[in-house]
Amino acid sequence: MSREDTRFWNESIERMNRSKLEEIQGERLRELVKRLYESVPFYRRKLKGAGIDPSDVRGLPDLRKLPFTSKDELRENYPFGLLAVPKSELVEVHMTSGTTGIPTPNFLTLKDVETWGELIARSLYMGGLRKGDVFQITPSFSLFTGGFSFFYGARKIGSFIVPTGPGNSKRQIELMKELGTTSFASIVSYAVRLTEVAREMGIDPSRDLGVRRIFMGSEMSTPQLKRRLMEAWSADVFDAYGQTETYGGPSVGLDCHLHDGIHVWEDHFLVEIVDPKTGEPVGNEEKGELVVTTLTKDAMPLLRYRTRDITFIYDAVEHDCGRTHRRIGWIEGRTDDMIKYRGVNFWPSFIESIILKYDELSEHYQVELFSERGSEYMVIKIEAKNVLQEGERRRLSHLIEDELRRRFMFEAKVEITEPHVLPRFETGKAKRVIDNRERKI
Amino acid sequence: MSREDTRFWNESIERMNRSKLEEIQGERLRELVKRLYESVPFYRRKLKGAGIDPSDVRGLPDLRKLPFTSKDELRENYPFGLLAVPKSELVEVHMTSGTTGIPTPNFLTLKDVETWGELIARSLYMGGLRKGDVFQITPSFSLFTGGFSFFYGARKIGSFIVPTGPGNSKRQIELMKELGTTSFASIVSYAVRLTEVAREMGIDPSRDLGVRRIFMGSEMSTPQLKRRLMEAWSADVFDAYGQTETYGGPSVGLDCHLHDGIHVWEDHFLVEIVDPKTGEPVGNEEKGELVVTTLTKDAMPLLRYRTRDITFIYDAVEHDCGRTHRRIGWIEGRTDDMIKYRGVNFWPSFIESIILKYDELSEHYQVELFSERGSEYMVIKIEAKNVLQEGERRRLSHLIEDELRRRFMFEAKVEITEPHVLPRFETGKAKRVIDNRERKI
Repeated sequence: MSREDTRFWNESIERMNRSKLEEIQGERLRELVKRLYESVPFYRRKLKGAGIDPSDVRGLPDLRKLPFTSKDELRENYPFGLLAVPKSELVEVHMTSGTTGIPTPNFLTLKDVETWGELIARSLYMGGLRKGDVFQITPSFSLFTGGFSFFYGARKIGSFIVPTGPGNSKRQIELMKELGTTSFASIVSYAVRLTEVAREMGIDPSRDLGVRRIFMGSEMSTPQLKRRLMEAWSADVFDAYGQTETYGGPSVGLDCHLHDGIHVWEDHFLVEIVDPKTGEPVGNEEKGELVVTTLTKDAMPLLRYRTRDITFIYDAVEHDCGRTHRRIGWIEGRTDDMIKYRGVNFWPSFIESIILKYDELSEHYQVELFSERGSEYMVIKIEAKNVLQEGERRRLSHLIEDELRRRFMFEAKVEITEPHVLPRFETGKAKRVIDNRERKI
Repeated sequence: MSREDTRFWNESIERMNRSKLEEIQGERLRELVKRLYESVPFYRRKLKGAGIDPSDVRGLPDLRKLPFTSKDELRENYPFGLLAVPKSELVEVHMTSGTTGIPTPNFLTLKDVETWGELIARSLYMGGLRKGDVFQITPSFSLFTGGFSFFYGARKIGSFIVPTGPGNSKRQIELMKELGTTSFASIVSYAVRLTEVAREMGIDPSRDLGVRRIFMGSEMSTPQLKRRLMEAWSADVFDAYGQTETYGGPSVGLDCHLHDGIHVWEDHFLVEIVDPKTGEPVGNEEKGELVVTTLTKDAMPLLRYRTRDITFIYDAVEHDCGRTHRRIGWIEGRTDDMIKYRGVNFWPSFIESIILKYDELSEHYQVELFSERGSEYMVIKIEAKNVLQEGERRRLSHLIEDELRRRFMFEAKVEITEPHVLPRFETGKAKRVIDNRERKI
C-alpha cells in the first residue's frame, strides 16, 4: 500500500483527539434531542413517554436513557411523519421498499446533501480515490441510495465519474478498457458477476484492466469473498457501511487501507451495540445489533436507530492509520436476513465463509430450505469453478457438510454443481436463500 | 397560465437585447475557434483543410466558412479524440450507443457540469418549476443524459427531486400520490404509458393527481400528442430540446408557456438550418437540418455540429414572453429515423399527427414495413381507446388511409385493433417502426 492511501480528506476531524470529539458529540446530542422535541411530534411523544425532558440530556452518558427508533416506526410514519423541517425545504428523497412493500424513506435538505457528499468523500478518499481517478459507478441511480451516494462523494473529490448504473455487464467491462477505469463501486454480488463476465470475454481483470480499487456496498460480504476479489482484480477492496436511513453507504464508514474494521464517522453518527432481544448494552467487543444516532441529519434525524445489523465495536480507539474514529467489525448479517433452521439461527454469510476456503469452488451458491411432515431440510448448491470428477465433488461436499455440522451444528446436504448452472444477479441484490418451508420459522 | 410562469431564471440574459447578445456570440465564436485550433488536433486539421486561420474569424458572419462536425466524426474519434482539455480535468461522461454500437460521447469538466445545470435551470424555470415543487424524474440516470440533465437543473432551482428513473409504473403513480408530485420529467412514450397505467389503477390523472407540469424529452412528440397529454393530466406540457453531445435536453432549449417554438439559449449555442444534402443554408423559416455550435462547452466543444434533426428557425426574434432568444420549431424527426417507403421520405410523427386527430384512437400505434417481389407494403396498427364496432373500425381505417394518400401520397393498410394489444415501452425509447423489408431503402 502506498503512502498516498493513508492521507486524509479532513485531517483535523479524522485525527481529532477523543476528548474533543466526545465534547462535540455531547453537544450535538443535546441539540438534537432539543430539536426533535420541538419539531417532531413523533419524537416529542416518545420522549415524553420515556419521561425525558430535553434539559435532562446533558451529554453522551445520557444516550442510554433515550428511546430507540425502529424501522417499523419509520414505515408507520411514512411518508412525512418524521420530518424535522417543512416539506418545502426538501430537495431529494431515497427509499427502500423492503419485504413488506411499505417504504423506509430518507428525506434530504440541501444541507443533508452537502453532509452526505462530505461523508462519502471522506470514506472514498480514505480508500484512495483521487481527482484523476476514473470511477465507474455500477449501483443503481434511483430511489435506491447506491449510485447517488458514490456520486456525491466522488464529485467532491473531483474524480472522473462514469455513471453506468447496473446491468449490461459486457459493456461495463469494455468501458473499463476504453476509458481506463481505475476504481469502481458495486454491490457485492455484482462485483462477483463482473469478474465472471470479464473472464468469459477472455479478459483477466488483474492483468488486462487498470482497476485498483473496488468499493463494495449494500450487501454483506465475507472476508473470504473480499480476498478473492482482491486477487482477481489485483485491487484493494473496501466495505462500505451505511443504509438508506443514514444516506447510504459508505456514509457511516468504510475500512481504511489496513482493513481491520470499518471506521465510523463519529462526529456525525453515535454508535452502540445492544442485545437485539433486550435492547440492553452488550460487553466490550461483544456482538449485537448496531444502533445509530444521527447527530447532523437535517430533514429526518434519527434517535438510537435500530439498524438490525449484527456486528461489534472495537475497543481500541487510536488506529495505526492515524484516525481516531472508532471501528466496527464487518457486518455478519442483518437480523432481517437471519434464518432459523432446526432451531439454529444463521446467516448465509456463515455458509459463504466456509465455501470460499476451497479454491475449487466458485462464489456462486444457493441455499434451499424445505419442510416435510414437520421436519426441515437444507440443500446447499455450490458451483465448482471448473468441471470436477464425481469423486472430487463428493469429497468436497462431505468436507463442507462436516464443517457445518461441527461449527454450526446443523445438518445440510451439500451438492457441488457444474459451473454456470445457478442464477446470476445483474441489477439487484443476490437472492441466496430460497425458503420453501410451509411455515417460515 | 399564471403570471408566475413568465418569470425568468436569469432575466438579464434571457431578455438581453439582440445587438449585445450577438456581440457576445461573436466574441465567443472567435475564442472558440482559436481554442479548438490550439488544443484539438482534429479541429486544427479540419480548419487547416478548409484554409482557415483563427485570425480569419472576426465574428458571427464568418460562421458559414467554418467546417461542419458530423456524428460519424465523433464516433471515429471515440473516446478521447475531441477533448480540448487534459483527461485529468474530466469529472463526468455520458454517451449514446446509437444504432452502430459505437458510442457518441460527451465528456464534461466541472465547468461543463455547472453550465449544464444553469441551462437546465433556465429551461425548467421558464416552464414554471420552482423550489417547493415535487419533481419526479423518470428518465434513466446512467450514461444516458436524461435523468442527470433534469437533476442538475432542478437542484439549482431547489425543487424536491424524486429520482425514480424509469420503470415500475404502478409505483410511479403511487409515489405521485404519496409525495404530492407537482411536476414530472419523462421521455415521450413513457408519459403516454404512465397515463395509461394511472387509468388502469382507477386514477384519473387530471382529477386525482397534482401534476401540473410535464417536461418531455429525448423522443419526438407531435403537437397532437402534447395536447392529449395536457388534457389527460390538466398539466402544461413542455418539449425539451438537446442531445447527449450538448449535455442533454432541455439544455439547448424548451418552449415557454406560450408554446410556439422552442427558445434556444443563444448565449451558449449558435443555431443554423442547412439543407441536409448540400449543407447550404436554407431560406427564412424553411425546414432543414439543425446545426449547433457550442459556444461555452469546456471539455468537448463542437463546431457546426450536424444534429440530424429537422426543424426551422422562426424569423421573429422578440417574443411575447419577453425573451429575446430565438425559437426553433418542433422537431419533426431525425434524419436517422427517416424512412423511405415507395420513394417517399417520412417520419413516424407524420402518421402520429394524423392518428391523434381521432378521439376514438389511442396513442399506441405501430408501423410495419414489408417487401415482396420488389414491391413494398406498409401496415399501420392503431389501438382503439375502447372496443369499437367492426363498421366503425373500418370507417376510421379508411379515413386515415385516405389522408395518408392525400397528404403524403403513400398507400398503407390501416388496422384499428382492440385496446391493449400493442407493446408498451417502460424503460427505453418506443419502437414504433418495424422494418421487415429485405433491403432497407
